[in-house]
Amino acid sequence: MASPLVKRYEGNPILTHSDVPYPVATVHNAAVVKHDGKYVMLFRAHRENGRSILGLADSDDGFSFTPRPEPFMVPVADGPFGEYEAFGVEDPRICHIDGEYLITYSAYSKHGVRIGLAKTKDFVELERVALITQADLRNVVIFPKKFNGKYVRLDRPHSEISPWSIWISYSPDLVHWGESRVVMKPVQYHWDEMKIGPGATPIETRQGWLHIYHGVFPTMDGSVYRLGVALHDLDDPSKVLSVSDRWIL
Amino acid sequence: MASPLVKRYEGNPILTHSDVPYPVATVHNAAVVKHDGKYVMLFRAHRENGRSILGLADSDDGFSFTPRPEPFMVPVADGPFGEYEAFGVEDPRICHIDGEYLITYSAYSKHGVRIGLAKTKDFVELERVALITQADLRNVVIFPKKFNGKYVRLDRPHSEISPWSIWISYSPDLVHWGESRVVMKPVQYHWDEMKIGPGATPIETRQGWLHIYHGVFPTMDGSVYRLGVALHDLDDPSKVLSVSDRWIL
Repeated sequence: MASPLVKRYEGNPILTHSDVPYPVATVHNAAVVKHDGKYVMLFRAHRENGRSILGLADSDDGFSFTPRPEPFMVPVADGPFGEYEAFGVEDPRICHIDGEYLITYSAYSKHGVRIGLAKTKDFVELERVALITQADLRNVVIFPKKFNGKYVRLDRPHSEISPWSIWISYSPDLVHWGESRVVMKPVQYHWDEMKIGPGATPIETRQGWLHIYHGVFPTMDGSVYRLGVALHDLDDPSKVLSVSDRWIL
Repeated sequence: MASPLVKRYEGNPILTHSDVPYPVATVHNAAVVKHDGKYVMLFRAHRENGRSILGLADSDDGFSFTPRPEPFMVPVADGPFGEYEAFGVEDPRICHIDGEYLITYSAYSKHGVRIGLAKTKDFVELERVALITQADLRNVVIFPKKFNGKYVRLDRPHSEISPWSIWISYSPDLVHWGESRVVMKPVQYHWDEMKIGPGATPIETRQGWLHIYHGVFPTMDGSVYRLGVALHDLDDPSKVLSVSDRWIL
């Protein structure tokens, strides 16, 4: 493609499993945020038993990252979170709001995959808040701004009769969620026809909230994941103003 | 079976579609509650296009019911409920709490099946409150008592990796729900091995909350639905004290 909107960094990969100072088999599905003038990356890593933890790497410039000596988040042994994280914690997203960083992550267990919510102010102390979905639901991003006093998220419930679409939900307290509505569905015979889901935390622009989402196209040789962009109304993020026809990556 | 716990009434059926004074093809999936010393039944009925509405029938004795001249609840044409009720309203449950009757029902549309919550004080005026699940989720019952200031419900999310189990969820306001946990799963090679789900509104007894749930067993000639009983702790309904090994109907 000529003149792509998004270019891959020629120095990729910026982090590999051999950079990590504890034993992991992979490094993938990262989230990055600017904190105190530096960059913090949370990344998912498979341990050698095939189950995931979250690591943290620091960077001054956003290109060169140094993982910390210990994992940032591992499954807890007991309590309400322990039962639902037993198979691992995965796929972090970070939202900066009201001086805190909200981290949504996938909690995997024999009960399926749910979304957990944790928060931190400094990326040292981490507090688990709640499990905010039932099973089977991945890919939740929270808007970095409240609307009418409520937190707002994009999520992706999946069922046979309502497959893999993007919904919006609201919460007064981060724990209890509701007022859900579908906002985007896969488009037939299009690059995202199999499924779509939230990608990164939406970015505020003058034209609207820019949401980089993911879409999947099925092929005989497996599924192809790509990124697309949608623009949500600044004041009412349940309104999708437009969606790019083409993928960006 | 000798000495069954539950006996079918010899006067069944107590209501048929021909008793209903407007055109319907079926009468089924009813909920009954005592109101002002009489009995009120909400029933699901298929219209002749295959989509459902809710009817209401009154009774002095709980055996002989007279349907009212008009349906009690039909899909609304527009607004947030209209989009999700377009294919019909189904399967009511009634919970009497704080002088009001909460009605949970299935709202069917092209987006799948969700649970709607409506309330009434007199079974004349009906107010829709919220859609309280995403898709695909049926079978929500609300406990007729608050616990630590919160409403509590049993629900039945379904996904491939966490099929058809009974979960518990909490809400401060009936609109936003969370703190979900699984409380009962299907039992392998048992009458309820395929799926289970909430049945009727739990009944308070001295020993605990009696919950009549439904379980399904797959056969080569279709699925067999039966009712079972579980006892939940009086003070903490997320604790299942015991589950009857046998079905009751």
